[in-house]
Amino acid sequence: MSVPTNLGFAVRDIAKAVQREDVIVVIDAFRSCSTIVAALANAAEGVTPTRTVKEALMLHKKHPKFILAGERSGIKLKGFHLGNSPLEFSPQKVKGKHIILTTTSGTKAIISSKKAKYVLAGAFLNAEATAKSAERIAEKEGTGVSLISAGTNGRFSLEDFICAGAIAKSFPGNNIAHSDAVLAALLAFQRARQSLNSVLQSGYHARYLASRGFEEDVKFCSRLDVFKLVPFLDRGTLVPLNGSLVFR
Amino acid sequence: MSVPTNLGFAVRDIAKAVQREDVIVVIDAFRSCSTIVAALANAAEGVTPTRTVKEALMLHKKHPKFILAGERSGIKLKGFHLGNSPLEFSPQKVKGKHIILTTTSGTKAIISSKKAKYVLAGAFLNAEATAKSAERIAEKEGTGVSLISAGTNGRFSLEDFICAGAIAKSFPGNNIAHSDAVLAALLAFQRARQSLNSVLQSGYHARYLASRGFEEDVKFCSRLDVFKLVPFLDRGTLVPLNGSLVFR
Repeated sequence: MSVPTNLGFAVRDIAKAVQREDVIVVIDAFRSCSTIVAALANAAEGVTPTRTVKEALMLHKKHPKFILAGERSGIKLKGFHLGNSPLEFSPQKVKGKHIILTTTSGTKAIISSKKAKYVLAGAFLNAEATAKSAERIAEKEGTGVSLISAGTNGRFSLEDFICAGAIAKSFPGNNIAHSDAVLAALLAFQRARQSLNSVLQSGYHARYLASRGFEEDVKFCSRLDVFKLVPFLDRGTLVPLNGSLVFR
Repeated sequence: MSVPTNLGFAVRDIAKAVQREDVIVVIDAFRSCSTIVAALANAAEGVTPTRTVKEALMLHKKHPKFILAGERSGIKLKGFHLGNSPLEFSPQKVKGKHIILTTTSGTKAIISSKKAKYVLAGAFLNAEATAKSAERIAEKEGTGVSLISAGTNGRFSLEDFICAGAIAKSFPGNNIAHSDAVLAALLAFQRARQSLNSVLQSGYHARYLASRGFEEDVKFCSRLDVFKLVPFLDRGTLVPLNGSLVFR
């Protein structure tokens, strides 16, 4: 049986994906999913996403040793330890630590997906690893894979669309039935990969981030297949996908 | 001042485009916009879109000499003279005639756009001409251009997305500010154009049409920049865009 893949752009697409019992891959390349990948790659214990700043603060009150991280309008929140720049999440700052993260789009999309059995966080940094993990789980469970573009404030996001294509390019071709949106994202990625950095820099959100001094974040988040690590939502906290847990 | 371009996928995007006073280009490549282009190219007097079959029948009752055309689920409607295959709209059948057309997606999107001052119908067949006309009007009026993918039953449509890119490729580059969705469509088109036919045939709607015996329609509608003709919605009826009328 082939694995159907979908690409959704809106909250209602998440609801449909949950209903289909798909493996959900939340994509927010600039920056939250890249930040989560960087944090876990640098040995953070886990990343707990929250929808609101208030929820983040309440969780921190209960667990004062946790690190508070997040942004609104791209800017680090007042009183928080870290913003949403993956470059901040160095081993010195995050190794062995539990992180609370609240962002404009990415963490909301992850939380909206939480009723699904499998929620992964995808970015350029881990595109290939994400595709392989998602496909393996979908085959085992006999379901499909839904890529969800988190976007920025509900806008169509160039980087997340191309990132969906970057993930789709690593699905083995012979056993996959791509939806039209996945096929389109794959075409866009195939064209963009020749000059991935400059294409991604032309997008709305990259230009906004650059205007706020985050050019280096955009460059870092545009790097393809750097990490094998795939964040997996385990009881509300993102941890590295653990083969023995998932394939028990 | 640069001309902003947008690409929308849903009814609410049409409402926003109308509010911005954008030039609206409704894209339904398979098949209604291609059919409208073919009909007008073969000297039909005009094409009046209707949202429902009932409205089409009522209009025909008032104007019994008009030709009734349209489909649901791709199939010609019972009692109608023509379906929605552009190949049916030959000069023998349509020259000098007024056509009433009702289709699943395209004519609905055109009618949803009717409050806009300028509504054009775009397809692969007239992509370049559509881009040039839309841009000229937008420059003159000091507005933007909104491409609207009519889709099929609200689905993301591979062919309409790539067609949006085909239209975007003909906007002169130096005076245009593309949205992320337009940039993505342009990338997808640039990749797809190397083998446009086979890429378009891989889409959901093309496969559906082929299964209903409309392979030749898909081939015809995939031809790029064949006509200079741009259908323009003038008081509820699509007619060839007439320079003297629009640029009066």
